[in-house]
Amino acid sequence: MLRWLTAGESHGQALVAVLDGVPAGIEITSDEIGHELARRRLGYGRGARMAFERDVVTILGGVRHGRTLGSPVAIQVGNSEWPKWQTVMSADPVDPDLLAAQARNAPLTRPRPGHADLAGMQKYGHDDARPILERASARETAARVAVGTVAKALIKQALGMDVLSHVVELGSVVAKSGLVPVPGDTERIDADPLRCLDPQASERMVAEVDAAKRDADTLGGIVEVLVYGVPPGLGTHTQWDRKLDARIATALMSIQAIKGVEIGDAFTQARSRGSVAHDEIVPTPDGVKRVTDRAGGLEGGITSGEPLRVRAAMKPISSLNRALSTVDVTTGEVATAINQRSDVCAVPAAAVVAESMMALVLAEAATEKFGGDSVTEIRRNLAGYLDNLLIR
Amino acid sequence: MLRWLTAGESHGQALVAVLDGVPAGIEITSDEIGHELARRRLGYGRGARMAFERDVVTILGGVRHGRTLGSPVAIQVGNSEWPKWQTVMSADPVDPDLLAAQARNAPLTRPRPGHADLAGMQKYGHDDARPILERASARETAARVAVGTVAKALIKQALGMDVLSHVVELGSVVAKSGLVPVPGDTERIDADPLRCLDPQASERMVAEVDAAKRDADTLGGIVEVLVYGVPPGLGTHTQWDRKLDARIATALMSIQAIKGVEIGDAFTQARSRGSVAHDEIVPTPDGVKRVTDRAGGLEGGITSGEPLRVRAAMKPISSLNRALSTVDVTTGEVATAINQRSDVCAVPAAAVVAESMMALVLAEAATEKFGGDSVTEIRRNLAGYLDNLLIR
Amino acid sequence: MLRWLTAGESHGQALVAVLDGVPAGIEITSDEIGHELARRRLGYGRGARMAFERDVVTILGGVRHGRTLGSPVAIQVGNSEWPKWQTVMSADPVDPDLLAAQARNAPLTRPRPGHADLAGMQKYGHDDARPILERASARETAARVAVGTVAKALIKQALGMDVLSHVVELGSVVAKSGLVPVPGDTERIDADPLRCLDPQASERMVAEVDAAKRDADTLGGIVEVLVYGVPPGLGTHTQWDRKLDARIATALMSIQAIKGVEIGDAFTQARSRGSVAHDEIVPTPDGVKRVTDRAGGLEGGITSGEPLRVRAAMKPISSLNRALSTVDVTTGEVATAINQRSDVCAVPAAAVVAESMMALVLAEAATEKFGGDSVTEIRRNLAGYLDNLLIR
Amino acid sequence: MLRWLTAGESHGQALVAVLDGVPAGIEITSDEIGHELARRRLGYGRGARMAFERDVVTILGGVRHGRTLGSPVAIQVGNSEWPKWQTVMSADPVDPDLLAAQARNAPLTRPRPGHADLAGMQKYGHDDARPILERASARETAARVAVGTVAKALIKQALGMDVLSHVVELGSVVAKSGLVPVPGDTERIDADPLRCLDPQASERMVAEVDAAKRDADTLGGIVEVLVYGVPPGLGTHTQWDRKLDARIATALMSIQAIKGVEIGDAFTQARSRGSVAHDEIVPTPDGVKRVTDRAGGLEGGITSGEPLRVRAAMKPISSLNRALSTVDVTTGEVATAINQRSDVCAVPAAAVVAESMMALVLAEAATEKFGGDSVTEIRRNLAGYLDNLLIR
Repeated sequence: MLRWLTAGESHGQALVAVLDGVPAGIEITSDEIGHELARRRLGYGRGARMAFERDVVTILGGVRHGRTLGSPVAIQVGNSEWPKWQTVMSADPVDPDLLAAQARNAPLTRPRPGHADLAGMQKYGHDDARPILERASARETAARVAVGTVAKALIKQALGMDVLSHVVELGSVVAKSGLVPVPGDTERIDADPLRCLDPQASERMVAEVDAAKRDADTLGGIVEVLVYGVPPGLGTHTQWDRKLDARIATALMSIQAIKGVEIGDAFTQARSRGSVAHDEIVPTPDGVKRVTDRAGGLEGGITSGEPLRVRAAMKPISSLNRALSTVDVTTGEVATAINQRSDVCAVPAAAVVAESMMALVLAEAATEKFGGDSVTEIRRNLAGYLDNLLIR
Repeated sequence: MLRWLTAGESHGQALVAVLDGVPAGIEITSDEIGHELARRRLGYGRGARMAFERDVVTILGGVRHGRTLGSPVAIQVGNSEWPKWQTVMSADPVDPDLLAAQARNAPLTRPRPGHADLAGMQKYGHDDARPILERASARETAARVAVGTVAKALIKQALGMDVLSHVVELGSVVAKSGLVPVPGDTERIDADPLRCLDPQASERMVAEVDAAKRDADTLGGIVEVLVYGVPPGLGTHTQWDRKLDARIATALMSIQAIKGVEIGDAFTQARSRGSVAHDEIVPTPDGVKRVTDRAGGLEGGITSGEPLRVRAAMKPISSLNRALSTVDVTTGEVATAINQRSDVCAVPAAAVVAESMMALVLAEAATEKFGGDSVTEIRRNLAGYLDNLLIR
Repeated sequence: MLRWLTAGESHGQALVAVLDGVPAGIEITSDEIGHELARRRLGYGRGARMAFERDVVTILGGVRHGRTLGSPVAIQVGNSEWPKWQTVMSADPVDPDLLAAQARNAPLTRPRPGHADLAGMQKYGHDDARPILERASARETAARVAVGTVAKALIKQALGMDVLSHVVELGSVVAKSGLVPVPGDTERIDADPLRCLDPQASERMVAEVDAAKRDADTLGGIVEVLVYGVPPGLGTHTQWDRKLDARIATALMSIQAIKGVEIGDAFTQARSRGSVAHDEIVPTPDGVKRVTDRAGGLEGGITSGEPLRVRAAMKPISSLNRALSTVDVTTGEVATAINQRSDVCAVPAAAVVAESMMALVLAEAATEKFGGDSVTEIRRNLAGYLDNLLIR
Repeated sequence: MLRWLTAGESHGQALVAVLDGVPAGIEITSDEIGHELARRRLGYGRGARMAFERDVVTILGGVRHGRTLGSPVAIQVGNSEWPKWQTVMSADPVDPDLLAAQARNAPLTRPRPGHADLAGMQKYGHDDARPILERASARETAARVAVGTVAKALIKQALGMDVLSHVVELGSVVAKSGLVPVPGDTERIDADPLRCLDPQASERMVAEVDAAKRDADTLGGIVEVLVYGVPPGLGTHTQWDRKLDARIATALMSIQAIKGVEIGDAFTQARSRGSVAHDEIVPTPDGVKRVTDRAGGLEGGITSGEPLRVRAAMKPISSLNRALSTVDVTTGEVATAINQRSDVCAVPAAAVVAESMMALVLAEAATEKFGGDSVTEIRRNLAGYLDNLLIR
């Protein structure tokens, strides 16, 4: 039973993630986690923070000499800016005079539209937005990627799965339809400024980012995550909250600024007729296959054995240099919202985070189906299952 | 801590749902549940089963004299066709001769594309699709609606929330943009053949259904669910799986044939710029408000106090009279898929089911925030919270 | 991921239990469940209800022709006394005049010490104890035994485990120390009036029950549950709430009137020295073994491969004919507690319930370790594990 | 919904605990956590490690300027011995030559009876006990105490509860019966070498420890945890796994070396008659009270409003200087078990850990009943509940 929690504030000392229920024997290193965290900072249109932010990875538990032990994995992602913030974000009480001297400590009283700020302040009873925005920040996704890297390693090493992502839409620019990456394409995708497979679209996306930047505006987009090497039978149709599509929906929707999720091309498919919306089944020398993958690899909440394909819609970044109208909560008067950062677009990074969330969900589903307290045991159980499928 | 599970097969003796963690004092009757179950059978384009299917509701536990007790609510939805199926679906072993005489008992060996059939058979080790399709069937949603009705009553009586739904797209027909129902509109929506607010679109939808039926084809569509009267502060930004948008995503994606979920108009919004994508905050005599509701009432995974608005994409029904190609699993040869029913479209019904799932998620989030073991206690805690909001 | 919930009131129409996450292919029948329910009514010292109570078992879902399907199993245990209670316990509102005519409907305003009555009324806001005692009643354990029988069948058929129980103490009578039943002893134990393996002790227990009955008093006792055939490696030391001993503790402590749980002879062992409290490990021709089983088969929250042995302490029944002092909540005056039934002792039955709870926990732990969506798959994964143990 | 996970190995860089679902506004500092960690090292009979082990507390997230934010609290407890262990316990791969030079890195192949060693090695597929014993070690309880301190602060500040513990039995020595500490006694208890309230018994306990030490043996004992200021109505009778006694049982049984749990004096009570085993209810000027507290403050899985009183049995420490027999897993030959440490007895410390686990369970139950995202809100909801109790 895989579980994961993250903790930590954006400008706190560190983020931390705990992944519980990890099988023994997964090969993983800090460098690999650092590599994925670097991928999370990719993408044209990011602000200054991405340039100086360095993620200092420390594996605190669950791994020894490059292999998981079977105990929970805890990973700390240090904040290289901590020295600047250690008074303002100190966990322990600080001399009020010291605090008063820190401009950074001034209460943030102009909640930003599109953020958790206002609702969070109301919920938790704060008159300062900092306690909310520190945790609601997308910085938290670094902790997800840290444990997501472990999940990726698990599903790759024990089950042979590869997780990929790319950007299919950015603002008004749509990548050429039907371009679907395959394992091995990640390096090429990562090299593209927008992590887009279609070079022409990528060029237009760069221009779109530049234009938005000039207008002090921001952009959203749509990302696609794919998983190859998925065995049939992960997830189940038998209970609402165990359906794999439902669990993927939670995982992706939980990413900051993601507001929509579709399996395959669900919104488009909803407008088509049944006769052209499903994946017919055919016998082949390599076993039973689908001729298409419109279902995104999921039927009835169960993996079909075809690649998983899921899309997520990211709203434009809510912090605009051209700040939005709000209310100053101390005065009740109209004000312009605080502005904490200046990314134009974080869609390429969201795709990388989505890979991690997908890997975590699949690692959970795979350990449910195949049990297993070690990579060896999962592999053996998977092989036994595939070798004994009644229908192939 | 609200939890709910359903059980039962499509042609079994009964479906049953258990809702655990229900506060005491909710007024609820079998008739009200029956009324919601009847709404679930609405919609132009349904097959014969909807006409003769009668849902016999029995509240087995948790309610006495029309009020919940605080103990788990269990509701049974009987299958009025059970006499025809009691041999074929008998839980206990049946004389093989008796079974052999039943055509209905013949193994279903031609799994249907778009259904859980094939992946489910592989997963659970069946060479007959019946054990899978009996549970994967959308009939199961009757059990959800049964407990969803209790959840609706809870959030209405304790917190004043109203849940509504309507069909915004059906096949290629799109309802007029911007038509959003308000509390009180349900009767009018239910009276429309497609549960669509736009009469012109509804007429075109009827024609689209008729055309699809003539072609032995099926249709999908897009539904919208709204919730009014939502206090700010349900859900939380603090942990991935506690975000309310993430939990709504699971709840809606778990509905049979739903393959996409968006909060507000997320997929459209992803293509717009930040300056026109968010909801600016303004002071009003009635307190702080948003001037728009593009966020669908959710910011950072927390309700903002604006109405919730969520859309779900339903794929076209996978069982076509014009049956799709598949493989006969006994022979490995090409075959046409089994065909179990003949709805052309179930989008209006899916919207009703979505209301129930939304109500369940909100009931869970509300009891988390306001605690409360009785309607009285929840009301008191809600009033205390609203009366003491730092920011209004 | 096995989950189970029960619902229903003591004098309601039926109890119902849902067991979710059940693998396919377990052989189970209503008769087998009925047999276990009959065992739950065993024991000298039970009141009249046990004589006339008949448990009408209906498997509502998850089983077809005597085998589980993989979908959730729902079992209804009907209340043969329902006709007498259908007005008083009606879920739907009843004509007030009809109700007023029913003596049974009078509010119960004298909460019983030792029961959930008073605290439950305060918690849920009732001024009548009926809404509480109907659900708190040990009648609810019939629903647990129903799904527990499925769990027993699973762990027996897929993993070869046998679950047994016996009474080791009743009131002041202690069975001979060191008598431990083995598989095959159940019939003999069930035939004993107190389900005790020691005939001399059993005679004294009968006398103790008779004496308590004469004094209008009640008795408690201590039961022991054993499980044979347990593979090493169920449960885990890695996280507090996944330790198998912790999960067994919840399962047994949750049984009505059970107030203490010990693994092996923990309370006695706590008074001994380490040199005589542990189980030394020895090589044998059949593999590594322990020379004793003082740990009750659990080390560090993990099964050791030795038989599981757990004890639970049941308090004396709280409903005495010689009623205890309480307060009438309508007047605030001293009163004698309501008296709902007249068992002297239910310890033998509690042992049977404890078997079911143990089976459920082991079924959960086994499916976690071995995964598996069918009995065949679990068996194969278990065999692969045992065949490949590094240490044997 | 409070959740907590711990991670980290005994000789790893740090332990870490994450507590999710924490309300805002709890006052807490590193020093307070450090103080509780120091209490966990108390007790006569501890080995050398307790003397030099210093717990370096770092709050990584969830707290700012001495108050919780509402976001998850993450606490790191550093290992002051890390420099000695950083090669042997390095998460990342280490040059094999470097490792070979470290005696500490030699595989531990003689699993200790009474520990998770052997079963853990079999489960996770290790031929070295280190990966198991590093996590199974009672050192892990430092992480529990870290978050337990936050839970204690929550239930004290929001609900006025006080959690206490003392040692009631140590080896063969039993403290005077009926001595029950009250709030304010903690300092006095902590000052006793065995955290025992009875000075005569404490002297005999010291002698018992000395004697065991001379014999290279170890001791266990029985601890009692009490909670004052508990409102009626926490926990529920309505579902097996939500009963508060069942949840307390998990929490305490999950502590390393705890093998038995009883609510009140359950094992003794099981041997008494009903007429003297329950707590009669009486009206008093201060409201309805129980005249005794035999039930340990819990009836039907719900708090009664009387103090909670729970006992836990700790087995003698499994690591003896007089090492037990085992098998060397590399040779299959008889061997003496590895011996990692030399405490004679850790019962006083276990009692402190039990306080934390109890506080965590009560914090969970209290936030379920009273909801609340801030201390202020919980206080308000509690006051509203108590002021409106139908029965007082």
